[in-house]
Amino acid sequence: MDIADFRDKILKQDRRALARAITLVESARADHRAQASELLEALRGAGKQSLRIGLSGTPGVGKSTFIESFGMMLTASGLRVAVLAVDPSSARSGGSILGDKTRMEFLSRDPNAFIRPSPSQTHLGGVARRTREAVALCEAAGFDVVLIETVGVGQSETVVAEMSDLFLLLLAPAGGDELQGVKRGIMEMADIILVNKADGDLKTTAMRTCADYAGALRLLRKRPQDPQGFPKAMTVSAVEKAGLETAWEEMTTLINWRRETGHWDQRRAQQASFWFHEEVKQGLLARLQQGEAKEAIAALETRVATGDVTPSAAADSVLRILNISAR
Amino acid sequence: MDIADFRDKILKQDRRALARAITLVESARADHRAQASELLEALRGAGKQSLRIGLSGTPGVGKSTFIESFGMMLTASGLRVAVLAVDPSSARSGGSILGDKTRMEFLSRDPNAFIRPSPSQTHLGGVARRTREAVALCEAAGFDVVLIETVGVGQSETVVAEMSDLFLLLLAPAGGDELQGVKRGIMEMADIILVNKADGDLKTTAMRTCADYAGALRLLRKRPQDPQGFPKAMTVSAVEKAGLETAWEEMTTLINWRRETGHWDQRRAQQASFWFHEEVKQGLLARLQQGEAKEAIAALETRVATGDVTPSAAADSVLRILNISAR
Repeated sequence: MDIADFRDKILKQDRRALARAITLVESARADHRAQASELLEALRGAGKQSLRIGLSGTPGVGKSTFIESFGMMLTASGLRVAVLAVDPSSARSGGSILGDKTRMEFLSRDPNAFIRPSPSQTHLGGVARRTREAVALCEAAGFDVVLIETVGVGQSETVVAEMSDLFLLLLAPAGGDELQGVKRGIMEMADIILVNKADGDLKTTAMRTCADYAGALRLLRKRPQDPQGFPKAMTVSAVEKAGLETAWEEMTTLINWRRETGHWDQRRAQQASFWFHEEVKQGLLARLQQGEAKEAIAALETRVATGDVTPSAAADSVLRILNISAR
Repeated sequence: MDIADFRDKILKQDRRALARAITLVESARADHRAQASELLEALRGAGKQSLRIGLSGTPGVGKSTFIESFGMMLTASGLRVAVLAVDPSSARSGGSILGDKTRMEFLSRDPNAFIRPSPSQTHLGGVARRTREAVALCEAAGFDVVLIETVGVGQSETVVAEMSDLFLLLLAPAGGDELQGVKRGIMEMADIILVNKADGDLKTTAMRTCADYAGALRLLRKRPQDPQGFPKAMTVSAVEKAGLETAWEEMTTLINWRRETGHWDQRRAQQASFWFHEEVKQGLLARLQQGEAKEAIAALETRVATGDVTPSAAADSVLRILNISAR
């Protein structure tokens, strides 16, 4: 493979080369990994900084319809949009390539849009690395906006938030007890909460839901990276394409403020540092899944839970096997 | 040191022996650690399961006054109460032994109460281990309730929640924008939110604050370990000793439900497992703070933040030094 040629094609926004490059970074084969590293190194610093938007929403909130409508609005205004997905469950559901393309019928045929489903990896750490590399490839290919969507399984919101400049939480209208659906801690990450389906019979409910979340957001501590009024909650209707322009204006306001105040660069640098440490940690902790250490942990697990041995004493045994003296 | 004698004294609720034992588990000296391990092993399974109550509250919410009033109420009803603290910042403030004792003037002189300040350790992992061991010693010494308080610096709430059967969040009354003081994610841990200072001029504000938090709690997802109506928010006045009986009744209701449904035992087993894995992880990750790995990380840190090298490539270099092949 000619890396220089590959690099040039991606920089020239060749969609087929981009798709092939993403396949390359998703591969677990050793020779593919080596080529992927070489390609990423060749592309480092080239291209542009896209606006990376993380988007989380549980199934049923209308995430695909939102991405379709929102993406079409962006491409209509001349922006190039890439859509990536982080879904650690997609390996189980047998991949969702066809699903993603048919779910976004118009956007998938838009020459200014590029849609890529989640890599089929069960391990979230693996998905995270591949997705970060795919984002880097999309930036090299000159996309203005990279949307990274997740269904919010386990820790996947954190993974997406840590590779985004802006994090959106998409919610459905709900009344009373149904409101309990938001995972604790996820509001920590949201820059903007969008209550979708503010149309037809659900419009009033959507507005009330939005007011409830706006109230809840006000109870939380102000973050240094937010200008006055953020994080905020808004209503949209993906089906009726209502509220999308306003939502985009709010995103632009937030992002411009962060750029001007230096929070954008700071966040990018922090994210790079986060992933550096994270990969070192994960690589090191992977040792616990191997050989003697794995066996010792499995053997001690039950004894710890039943109180047969203290957690500290059990941990010391494992660390001795790994040839690391106890603290 | 005669461990058997030491053990017997603790089981006989000898307060001086308990205090000496806690000093022993707090020591970093290798011979002390060995003795501490031997003592803890000798006491394992002895004594009783105390009710471990975690309590978090920022400075100014009246935490000491609350512990004093709440603790006195418990001892008056015949219960023996131990108070431990997790405060990673206490090493900086030069320890708070005198502070804790004078802050709780009556409780500290109550023969059925035992107050112990936070160990002077800057490393939260160290504080966590010592506090868990101190809790085990208090259980062996037959305390009915062990209150573990934290000021909520960084991750200390998580540490306290993971060693508690019940987690209380103490808040002060606040109006409008002042409400933003709750750290995102901490509501995840709270079983009961207590809005303190529901007395005098602040009474109305406290009730409104309580209603606001009750509303916010209802927006969060129901947890399997909660009976109907939990987590909940209530008002108390530590100064006027109002609402404390009701709060204790609610705690008893919650805990009895958890005991009957098996969630109590399940949580204890999960916590033991959590600390086992946590200590193995921390012990292994401590390798990154040593020798060549430490130097490599420091050297790569800036290059990663400036985009001079990708996080993945930098991580691979570090893992090669640790003789661990990259994923």
